[in-house]
Parts: sequence; C-alpha cells; structure tokens
Amino acid sequence: MTKETALKRTHHDFINLMPLQTGGILTDAAKEALVEFGDGYSVCDFCQGVLCQITNPPIADFVSKSLPEFLGCDVATITYGARDAKFMVMHSLMKPGDSIVVDGNRHYSTIVAAERAGLNVIEVPNSGPPEFWIDVNKYIPLIEQHKPEAMLLTYPDGNYGNLPDAKRLGEIAKEYDTPYILNGAYSVGRLPVNMDELGADFIVGSGHKSMASAAPSGVLGMRKKWENIVLRKSAKYPKKDIELIGCTLRGTVMATLIASFPYVKERVNHWDEQVQKAQWFSSELEKLGFQQMGEKPHRHDLIYFESPSLYDISKHIRERGYFLYRELKGRKIWGPQPGLTKHFKISTFAASRDELAFVIDSFKDIINKYG
Amino acid sequence: MTKETALKRTHHDFINLMPLQTGGILTDAAKEALVEFGDGYSVCDFCQGVLCQITNPPIADFVSKSLPEFLGCDVATITYGARDAKFMVMHSLMKPGDSIVVDGNRHYSTIVAAERAGLNVIEVPNSGPPEFWIDVNKYIPLIEQHKPEAMLLTYPDGNYGNLPDAKRLGEIAKEYDTPYILNGAYSVGRLPVNMDELGADFIVGSGHKSMASAAPSGVLGMRKKWENIVLRKSAKYPKKDIELIGCTLRGTVMATLIASFPYVKERVNHWDEQVQKAQWFSSELEKLGFQQMGEKPHRHDLIYFESPSLYDISKHIRERGYFLYRELKGRKIWGPQPGLTKHFKISTFAASRDELAFVIDSFKDIINKYG
Repeated sequence: MTKETALKRTHHDFINLMPLQTGGILTDAAKEALVEFGDGYSVCDFCQGVLCQITNPPIADFVSKSLPEFLGCDVATITYGARDAKFMVMHSLMKPGDSIVVDGNRHYSTIVAAERAGLNVIEVPNSGPPEFWIDVNKYIPLIEQHKPEAMLLTYPDGNYGNLPDAKRLGEIAKEYDTPYILNGAYSVGRLPVNMDELGADFIVGSGHKSMASAAPSGVLGMRKKWENIVLRKSAKYPKKDIELIGCTLRGTVMATLIASFPYVKERVNHWDEQVQKAQWFSSELEKLGFQQMGEKPHRHDLIYFESPSLYDISKHIRERGYFLYRELKGRKIWGPQPGLTKHFKISTFAASRDELAFVIDSFKDIINKYG
Repeated sequence: MTKETALKRTHHDFINLMPLQTGGILTDAAKEALVEFGDGYSVCDFCQGVLCQITNPPIADFVSKSLPEFLGCDVATITYGARDAKFMVMHSLMKPGDSIVVDGNRHYSTIVAAERAGLNVIEVPNSGPPEFWIDVNKYIPLIEQHKPEAMLLTYPDGNYGNLPDAKRLGEIAKEYDTPYILNGAYSVGRLPVNMDELGADFIVGSGHKSMASAAPSGVLGMRKKWENIVLRKSAKYPKKDIELIGCTLRGTVMATLIASFPYVKERVNHWDEQVQKAQWFSSELEKLGFQQMGEKPHRHDLIYFESPSLYDISKHIRERGYFLYRELKGRKIWGPQPGLTKHFKISTFAASRDELAFVIDSFKDIINKYG
C-alpha cells in the first residue's frame, strides 16, 4: 500500500474539542449519504440543468423551502463555504475600490475575500483584552466617514466566541441604508439565528463548520431585493447563476448537508444547554488558573483561554509546548493546537459533560504532574 | 425516516454510460478515504495555516510533487473544479472588458466564468455537423483582430469528445504571446496529457469528472511565470492565496483525490484500449442506424449519436421519449438523459467490452421491439 492510499486518522474515538471540527461531525444519516453519493457528480443523476432545482435527491426542497425557513431569509442558495459566500456577495454588490466596514474580530477569509474583490476594508476595533468586545455602535462613525457599500459582522467570531449585538447593527444598517452581511459560520446550525429578526441583508453559514456536513460546503441566505443581483443569471445561459459559475456543490457534500439537516434543525433548540455547559467548563478551567478571554458570562462553545501555568511548564522541559499535546493525546483528548501552551482555543460543542469533566481532571493532572 | 434522510441512489449496480459520471467513480481507496475524512474539516487536523502544505494527510507531496509531474507543469494547486480553476485564471490575468478567444465547443461554464470575470468572449466556430471540428488555426485571425489577453481550448469538449490540435495551438500561443488555458476536464485523469508538451500556460482538470474523486474537486497547473499572479498572496496574510480565499478543498474530497491518484496515474497508460473500445462501440451502434457525430475515427470515450430511428418510435407511443430511458433502466443501463431519443451522449469509459456488448444488444432489442 502506497503512502497515498494509507490515509488514516488516528483519533476517531478521541474527545474532540477542536473549534474547527466540533460542529462538522457527521450524523449517521450524513455518513450514509456520503457513501451513497460518493462517486463524483452522483447528485446530478436527474439534473435538468440547475443543481438547486434537482428533486432527487431533494435539493430543490432543501434550498427553496427548508433553508430560507431555517435562516429566516427570503431566498437561499448553496456555496462551497462561508468564505465563498462572502466573496459572492462582495463581488456582486461592489466593484474594486469600494469600501466595506467589518468587525475587528472577523475571520481572515473575510479580509482575503475582500482582497479578491479589490475592496477597501475598514475595521471596527475590538475592546482589547480581556473581552475583545465589538461594540456595534462603533460602526456608525466609520459608516459616516467612509460611506461604505456594505458592512459585515462576524457572529460569533472564531477566536473568542463573542456574540456581538447583531440586532442593533441591523438597526444601524437600516438607518444608514447599508447592506449588512452576517457571517454565521459558527452560529448557523449551532444556535437559533434568524436573518430577518436581526435585520441583516445576507446570512452566511458553513456546512463543515456548523451544520454536521462534509467539507467544503456552505449556505447563503438573502433578502428578496438582492436576488437579482447576487443570483443574477448568465446572459447566454439563462438558467445558470453567474456567481455560482452554474453549480457549486455538485457532489456528495451536498448530500451530507441535506442528510444532517433534520438533526441540525433540532439541535439549535438545545442551545441553552450548550451555553450552560460552556460556562461551567470555563469556570472550572479558571479555577485551575487559566483565564478565559472574551465575553463573560460566555455565550458560545468557542472559548479562548490564556494559560500561563502551562506556558511556565513548557519553558522548563525539553519538548517545550508539545508536552501538552502529548499529554492530552495520551488521554484521548483532541483539540488544542500542537505546540501551544500560552493560550489555546477549544470548543465544548461536541463533548458531553462527562467528557468535559474528564478534560478538566486531565488539565488538573497535567498541572500537578509538572507543577 | 424523513425524506431528507432517505437519500438513496437506485442504480449502483447499473452499467454506467453517463458522460458526467464515468471518470468520477471512486476507487476502493477513495471510498475508504471518503469515510475516514468524512467529518467536516478533518483533513485540517494538522494544518499549519496552508491547506496545500499539510503533510498528514500527504497533501503537500501531492500538490507540490505528484501533480506537477502528472500534469507536466511547474506549479499546481487544488480547486473546487475545472470551472473554478478557469475563473481563478481569468480573474487573475484579466480585468473586466478584456477579451478571451475560446473554442466554439467550450463548456457552458467557460462562458459563465468569463461573464463572472466581466470578459468579452470571442468564439472560434466549429465546422458544424457531422464533425463539429475545431480547427485551431482559426484562432489566428481572431487573435489578430481582437488582441485577446488569453485564449482557451477545450480538450476534449464534453459534447462530441473531439480532441483538437492542442499542440498546434501551443505554437500559436507562443507566436502571438498570448496566455493559453487548456481545459482538460475530460482528459486529465483519463488520457496522458502534458501541459508543457502541448505548449499551454495553464492546465485545468476535474477531480469528479476524470480523476475518480468525489465532487466538488479540481486541479490547476501552470507555468512558473504565472505563479506570482494566479497564486498571489494576501497582503495581510502572506501565507494565504487570494484566489483560493485561503483554502479550497478543506475536506474529504481532497482525501479522495489523493487516494485515487495512484490508480488514476496508472490508468492513463491504458488510454489506447479505451479508444479502441470507443471506436468499436461506435461502429456497432452505427450498424443499427445511429450516426456518430464528432471526430472520426473517434479518439475519446465521450460519444454523441444521432438516433432518428429511436426518435421515430417516440412519436408513436404514449410515453414519448421516456420509453428509451425505461427500457434501458429495465436492463440496468444508466446513461442517456431521460426523455432524449433524437440524439444522446454516452461515455464508454467505465464499461467493459462485455457490458458494452450487452448495451449494443439492448439497443438492437429495443429497436426490434418497437420498430
């Protein structure tokens, strides 16, 4: 067997705390769909020319009914991921040299998507440590100064798991008549989020980050008024979306998105339990001397900790920061980035209370062992 | 079980002749990898910030060594598919209003990608029926007249399976100093194709169409001189590709591409057998009164037939053109688009000679039954 064909992951049965991964673990239904539609282009068996109108598998129903209802928007479509949805909107609404105001906690892909679209990016700074809070009222002076063609808010951000006041920004967007993109890569599929209620013009979600789907996959919802701009059709091929270059998820990732959807739709109703779990976990780790950064009390499973005690240990041992990764791996815990000890990010979304209790005990043991 | 979770294909064991699907059927290794890396973002377990530099799974080796060697190019990267690769190149090299000369047999996505990039498209007409041949020398007057910023050739096209003289166009590209994009969605992974030998600047391939991979997936190769333009990095995030918005195939489709690669690399060496099979199949169907369109003798597994005898039958029965689909389905043959009888496209790539003999006999039976 060659190197290429021996493609294995060694931590399937680990407790997964990796922020990128906890919301994208497949359901059993998605695992079945993944295999069923594994061969390239197999969701296109009965295609009549438009991916989003395929009825078998039921893509059309999912895109035209389930998704708009779930996202609280008028019109939805499918993308390769949140970053691609952001670029689609930027590229449709704006031209090179135009300006966009974004939160300082934005994902790097917001900046790179804007660069690809040739935009001028203005950032609303966060409040700095320890909360790194985005006060959305700070968009106002920047809107007045720069007259941006659009604005974007990350809800929550992927570093601190802060949930800024998206609804207040909706009011500001209305007052200043500025199109408002909500990046819900870490909210859509985890917690209830409704574009219309928040007053946004666009909502972006990630299948692999938060909708229990394989990668790459994403969703984009919008108000009806933007449909003819973002979902404009080709002059020569009137059924084909220009921004999607015809079709996007023409394969098995599409099937996983649909297969997991009933579960995802249900799980957002249990978000309060997720928040309680995250808060409890955070308070327990703080008892060990770690300091939780970001909003407090915390309202999301993404949590950022400063951990000076672990960093102190790393300075005195030969393998430096990797000791933490090795110790956690030995306990079948997967998450903090290998080598990091000064601070780390984790997500409590996929782990049970019992598993998290074991994680807390493990941190205790590790500190005691080296401390 | 809800409709969404009952996602099944009913023709797994059929003889597959569907042009979109025959080159994208997964290998056993790819099926395993698909499941292994099914959870969203699981190829990113050990990511240090750049998808194409991940060493476990061995993405870095695949992208920086295996692919350039296979494609005959200096530098390669991964894309969501051939259409996305075409857009990347167009968007990097050209600005709205610029011109591109393309062959008249180009895929619709070439036109839509160019529309997305705001380009003026000039088409080199084909010779019309029955051959629909693209004479690449006809690019010359259009290049002289329009001074295009780039040109593109589809090799082969997806309708007739014609393989135009890509090497001659390489000479023309050199003579007129015009960047040359070769769309190999139906060649890369099926037959030996070498960008450098053909004199192209870019080569585009499709994972799900021709590299035994799940969708969406694709590859892009280029000459070194274009690396700093097409693979330019973000000013703010110097490791991140602008045109890839950081990363593309951050999931299990990437794993299928790698897992199938040893097989794909080997199978292109047997292309002459594929051509012989296609020619034999074509001549047998012509004996039944069908007429093969496109190049003759045919040099690709994609074949377009006109079938007036089937169309005549369809005019006299209640279910019209669907009788053919039903008859073939009853014989476990999957391919021609439901409803079509006047003409149809098929691919002989995935079927054995015995299976194709059964297909030929089936067409005979159907004609006799209704004729």
